[in-house]
Order: sequence, then structure tokens, then C-alpha cells
Amino acid sequence: MTIQTIRELINERTEEYLDQLFTLLKQPSISAQNIGMEETSTLVKNMMQDIGMDAHLLETDGYPVVYGEKLNADNDFTLLIYGHYDVQPPDPVDAWDSPPFEPTVRDGKIFCRGAGDNKGQLMAQLLAIKSYQDVFGELPINIKLVFEGEEEKGSPNLAKFVEEHKELLHADLVYTSDGPMHESGAPFVLLGVRGLLYVELTAKGADWDNHSGNKGNIVPNPAWELVDLLHTMKDRDGNVLIDGFYDHIRQPTEEELELISTLPYDQKTLGKQIGYEDFDMTKEDYYRKLTMEPTFNIAGFHSGYGGEGTKTIIPSTATLKMDMRLVVDQDPADIYDKFTAHVKKYAPGVEVKWLGGMLPSRTPADTEVVGVVRNAVEKAYHQPPILQPSLGGSLPDYVWTKILGVPSVVVPYANFDEANHSPNENIGLDNFFDGIICTCQVIQELGNRA
Amino acid sequence: MTIQTIRELINERTEEYLDQLFTLLKQPSISAQNIGMEETSTLVKNMMQDIGMDAHLLETDGYPVVYGEKLNADNDFTLLIYGHYDVQPPDPVDAWDSPPFEPTVRDGKIFCRGAGDNKGQLMAQLLAIKSYQDVFGELPINIKLVFEGEEEKGSPNLAKFVEEHKELLHADLVYTSDGPMHESGAPFVLLGVRGLLYVELTAKGADWDNHSGNKGNIVPNPAWELVDLLHTMKDRDGNVLIDGFYDHIRQPTEEELELISTLPYDQKTLGKQIGYEDFDMTKEDYYRKLTMEPTFNIAGFHSGYGGEGTKTIIPSTATLKMDMRLVVDQDPADIYDKFTAHVKKYAPGVEVKWLGGMLPSRTPADTEVVGVVRNAVEKAYHQPPILQPSLGGSLPDYVWTKILGVPSVVVPYANFDEANHSPNENIGLDNFFDGIICTCQVIQELGNRA
Repeated sequence: MTIQTIRELINERTEEYLDQLFTLLKQPSISAQNIGMEETSTLVKNMMQDIGMDAHLLETDGYPVVYGEKLNADNDFTLLIYGHYDVQPPDPVDAWDSPPFEPTVRDGKIFCRGAGDNKGQLMAQLLAIKSYQDVFGELPINIKLVFEGEEEKGSPNLAKFVEEHKELLHADLVYTSDGPMHESGAPFVLLGVRGLLYVELTAKGADWDNHSGNKGNIVPNPAWELVDLLHTMKDRDGNVLIDGFYDHIRQPTEEELELISTLPYDQKTLGKQIGYEDFDMTKEDYYRKLTMEPTFNIAGFHSGYGGEGTKTIIPSTATLKMDMRLVVDQDPADIYDKFTAHVKKYAPGVEVKWLGGMLPSRTPADTEVVGVVRNAVEKAYHQPPILQPSLGGSLPDYVWTKILGVPSVVVPYANFDEANHSPNENIGLDNFFDGIICTCQVIQELGNRA
Repeated sequence: MTIQTIRELINERTEEYLDQLFTLLKQPSISAQNIGMEETSTLVKNMMQDIGMDAHLLETDGYPVVYGEKLNADNDFTLLIYGHYDVQPPDPVDAWDSPPFEPTVRDGKIFCRGAGDNKGQLMAQLLAIKSYQDVFGELPINIKLVFEGEEEKGSPNLAKFVEEHKELLHADLVYTSDGPMHESGAPFVLLGVRGLLYVELTAKGADWDNHSGNKGNIVPNPAWELVDLLHTMKDRDGNVLIDGFYDHIRQPTEEELELISTLPYDQKTLGKQIGYEDFDMTKEDYYRKLTMEPTFNIAGFHSGYGGEGTKTIIPSTATLKMDMRLVVDQDPADIYDKFTAHVKKYAPGVEVKWLGGMLPSRTPADTEVVGVVRNAVEKAYHQPPILQPSLGGSLPDYVWTKILGVPSVVVPYANFDEANHSPNENIGLDNFFDGIICTCQVIQELGNRA
């Protein structure tokens, strides 16, 4: 028997499988607003049990993790599949062409909140396990499912959960299907993410705005204080001047640099996508800066008058929001300490607040199971996947690579235009069914490997 | 006959003089909204004519100047008195304890929009001329009155008006009563103002905000561009690094420095007034920085996200509003050229916009007529005036000192808490009547001088 048999099975069961997905999609699960969370977690648990898995709701400090396992494989390789059953709020509801929680098929796509992010991809995993078992009788590897309910809130309790369930979650590979495939339609295998440190700085001058004439040169200006402070933090070439900021950065391996050189790159299209016509960067620079180097970004700077025309004041406060994307093995807690020490030295009156942090994560490209996944994905999609060392963005991937100590890959199943977090979120019918095939292929290849 | 006779006359005419003032106060004249401007200018012209002056409305590109003169004095000394008949809008009207255009006497003060700024002070000038003539038969000097209707709009047409009427306006001294007296109740004689240059800088990155993860290090950040630019403009000690910024600054004379040393100074009270407890500056530093040195102020800096919590974006634009208070003999047009040249050199993509400019002005403290005014004010108030070389703020005083080439002094008549530009604007009854006396005294002393 081959994967071709799975495809045939899916063709027979198209309606049944869509029914399953629609049942899940119809059930709202908005974690930010605590809507339908209990119902959805129970529904997902029941779906796991229906395909013969041992499934439970595991408590966290927030919404429960739906955990399922099937451990009776002949070999001891364990695949942990991560996903999330919560969705973004549907607002603005008026911008949807069909009601956000009524799955509607148009133009070969299923439109519904959660269709792409992440219920469609999560359901592809479940139906892959079901299909595989129905065709081949049993799974060739052990499988653990961890579907959390707080991803859209930034996974505030996931790290603690993983820490507390290390033994239960022990695995040889973590596999996540979330986000969109490459714009060309090619599949992705992503090996990591950048981490994050988000801080807010507040400088205070006088207790109220003062007249810039009657008090000019007399009252300290907190906007200038932040500007002067920023200057001590970064030179004009972009180098961060905070002591130790670059410590612990893992240099890209030759394999990773080699990988980058094989990635697709279209500078002109990219310039259009980011809204910057003058965009001019070599492919190597682009991927290195995006995936291997930290950022030191001003996300917001606000002080004083911002309306039309003139207002002559010395502002009383200035606020700066900065986010730093971190790369392996920078640690947001360590960078925060260094950052605050720097502020204490150069502008002791400025208040620094931690607004968020996430460790970076990267699985080495030469990890053996990465090669197995890569081959499986190539077989499923009949084209080689784009293997990227890291996302520019951040996901809680470190809970697997750092806390659990397991390699982790992200293989997105959704179409590039899935509109996640936006109105008219969708997943292509093909993307959904191809996702089932891909998971089956990964399971089979990992089984063959043993 | 002495000024005492004037005081007696005023006592007899209290009701009549208040009637005159109330008539003017009841007539709204909101230049920003073009409310009652024609009626008020005609009313003021008629009031001038009623006291025997040759009065006209002189056209400008905006509201007319009400011009009056009485030139038949025995000696050829000419005093030009400047004032304005327009007022600020009364908003927020709900915050007034009595209707803003109904003069109401409470606690020894007249509450009405324009009471202090500037109709009460303007009327004190008119009634001084009337009183002086009624007591002494005729004026000992020539007097010209220039009451404009656009001061609350920043006097956009005054410079051109003065330029076009140099001969008509020729005088030996310009005298302005506007603003409040010293907080101690002591009179002020102010010898100048700082000028102003107000610019807006706009930096642009991409056409829209980009995700700071997916695009971090790739898209240029305009907030950083402005921060980097600002750093090239000023060092941490506050020195402006723009080429030629300090050229043309007139060094304080010994007399001016001497003046400063005689000024009242209470650091603690000042700290409270500006809302800055840590305020710590010597008197000499305070007055030198406030009146003799230019500023380089950030009045507003806005870019990116400013709400609660985090938003991870690379802002697409950043806007900076800066005002520079200039001192004699800096010229805003010259500084603007130097400023834009600097920006062109260090951040050619940043757009600079001129939002406003005003020349600084200073009349030397050792000018002979300044001494005469000083003595007159001392006699009127029975205490020596505080003679300050310059205001920290800006007024169009340069039209007299630079365009007309005449010494100019500002002698405010309103109480310190006149609440100009605010709800419950007022002038003390004593301040109004003392103002009449003071103008008479000035007229008499200037006459004696000849």
C-alpha cells in the first residue's frame, strides 16, 4: 500500500472529512474573549477519542491543553504534533463576505474564522491519523498531540505547561502546521523563529507641559532625554552598543548559509510587498538579516504635540516602545538585564518596563529527522520544500527546542492568502486535503526510517 | 498740577470709565473666527475720535489696524502705543463662571474675554490720553496709537503693515501694555523678546507599517532616521551643532548682566510653577538661559504605536515638531536655511517644513528713554519696576526695533492671574485704573524730558 491509497480514501470521504472540519469551525473559540473555549476543547478531545487516541484535557493556568496520544507503535520513535484550537476575534464582522463562524465554500476555498489559523491545519493532522490507521491498520510511530487554547494570546502558559509535563511530552520531533505556504505555492519547512524582547521606556520632565518660550532652556525635555539615550544604544550603521548584546549569538552553520543560497528571491516583488520601492538588498543579506540577526526596532515614539500646525510646548513625558527580535542563543531575560543596566548608566531617570519576551529557537538543518521531513514533504507536494533556517517573526517554538530539548519543524499547510487574523480568513480545499496527505507521508517516512 | 490730580479725576469718573471699558468688552472680536471684527475696529476708531484724536482704519491683508494720532505737542517727541483689539475664542464656554462677553465684577476684578488681553490695557491707554488732556489741557508729546486686530493670530500682517507705513509710524519710542505684571505684584519693564523658528520634519520609510518580525532589519525605520538626525544636531551638553547656528548672537552687555543680578528669584517657587521639583539653577543661569540664549526644543515627536501594551511594527512615518527660540540678532530665515542645509547633508530624505518664524528683539537697557519709562513706572506704582532684558517668549516686537528702528518697551498692566487665553479671563479694577495712571505718568515724564 502507498500514500496513493490514502489519496483515494480521501476522495471517497471528501464530504465526511469536510463535515468534521465544519463541525469544528462552527464552534467559536475566541481565547481573547473567553467565547466557546470549554465547548471547543471538549469537542477536540472527543474527536481525538473518535480516532482511537487516548485523550485528555490537561489543565494550565489558562485554557486547557487538549492532549492525545497513541503509543502502541512497533518502534519507539515519537512524533509530537503541536497546534491550537483557539482563534482570533472575528472583528470587524462587517468586513466578512459570509458570517465568520459559518463555513462557506467559494472559489475552491473554505471561508471561516479559524479555517487557516489553525483549525483547518489541526483537523488535517487528526484526519491524517484517522486515514493512516484506516488504510494501514496501525501507526508506524508513536504520536502525541498537543493542541493548546492560548496561541492567539501569545501562549502565556505553554512554557510552564511543557516544563511541568516534560516526561509526558517526551518526543523525538515536534511538528507544527501553522501559517501559510510560500507565495509561489511551494511548501515550506521552517527550522526556527526569532525570539522577542518588547520594552517600554518612559521619560518624565516636569509634571505638566510647559510653554516653550516662557520656560525654554529651563525645564528638561524628556523627548530629548530619550533621543540622547537612543544614541548611546545604536550607532548609525545599525550596530547595537549595549554591552554584551551580541554575546551568545550562534553563528550560522555552513549548511545554513548554503540553505540560504538556495532560497527563492525576487527583490522587486519583495519591494512591492513591503511598500518600499527603493528596496535594494542581496539575497544573502536579506535572509541573513531576516533570520540570523537580531533587530533593534523603534515600534513607537510619542511625546508632545502631534496635531496640525504649531504648539509651543516642552512635553512633560516621552514614551518609547521598542521590540528586539532575538536570534539563537540570545535570551530575552539576559538582554533585558543588559538593556536596563545600560539605561541605568546613561539615563537613570528613565523607567523601563518589560512588555513581553520569547526565546528564539532554531533546529540545525543537518538534524537527521529534518531530512526525513523534507523528503516526505517533497513527496507529498511533488516539489522540494523551501527549507528556511528561521522565520523573521516569533513563535513559542523554544518550548520544544529549549525546554523539551527536541528538534522542531514548522510545515505550514495553509495557502499564502489565508488571511489569518483578518476578515474572510480561509483555507483552500486543496490545501486542507493536501495537508492530510502530507501528514500521512511524514508519518510513513518517519516510520520507514526506524 | 501733578499726577495726583489725575488720580482724583479718575476717582470721580470711575463709573464713566468702566462704562467705556464695558462697552468695548461686550463687543466680541474673535479674530480666529472672524466674529465682530468690523464692529470692534469701528468702535475703537470712534473712541479715539471721541478723545480728540485723528483716527482711521488702515487696511492690511487681514483685519484693519485702528490708527490714531495727536501730533500738536510743543515738542517733537513721539510715543507710539501698540495694542490689539482682537481676543481669543472663549472656549470652553462652560468653564466660565459668568458669560464670556458679559463684563462681570467679582472680588475686585472684571471678568470678561479680553478684560486683560488686551482690551482692558488698551482702554487704559485711551482713557489716560483723555484724562491727561482733561487735566492738563494738552499732551506734552505727540502720540500715535496702533491697535491691530490680529495679534491673537500671530500678527501675520503686522510686519508688512509697518514696512508700508514707516513714515506715518515714525516715533521715538514704542510702548506696549500686554501680558501680566510680576507675580509679586511689582511692575515690569520688558526690553525685548526671543524670536521663533518653528519647523516640522517628516521622515518616511515604507508605504505602510510593516511587521517588525517578518520584515525586521529589512525595511528602514523613519523613527530611527529622525533620532539619528537629531543626534547630529545637538550634543548631550545642549550645544547645537548646526553650522552657524550661534552666528550673529549679540552678547549681553554689562548693563544687561548687571540688570539680571538685580532681578527677583525664588528657585523653590519657580520649581513649583513649572512642575519640576528637582529644579536647580542659579539666578544668573536662569535669566541668561531664559532671555539671552536660544533654545532647540522638541515640541512633538510621533511615530508608530502609542497605545496600551505591544504592537510589533516598523512605523512607516515619523514626525518631529521643533521650535527654536532665537535671540538677537539671530534671524529665523537664516537659521532655517542653515537647518535645512544640515538636514540635506545628514538625512536628505527627510522633509522640512517652515511652520512659523518671528525675529527676536531687544532694546538696550542703557537707552535713554528706557530710563525715563523706568522712572515713570516707579512713580506710578510707588515701587521700582523689574527691568528684564527680554521675555523668554515671543512677540512681534521686532516690527518696531528692526523694521521701524525704534526702541521698544513692554509695560504690562494686568494682574499676574489675568487668565489670558483661558476661561474666566479678568483684570483687576486696580490694575485697570493704575494702568491709566501709569500711562499718564509715562506721558508726563517723556514730556518733561524734552
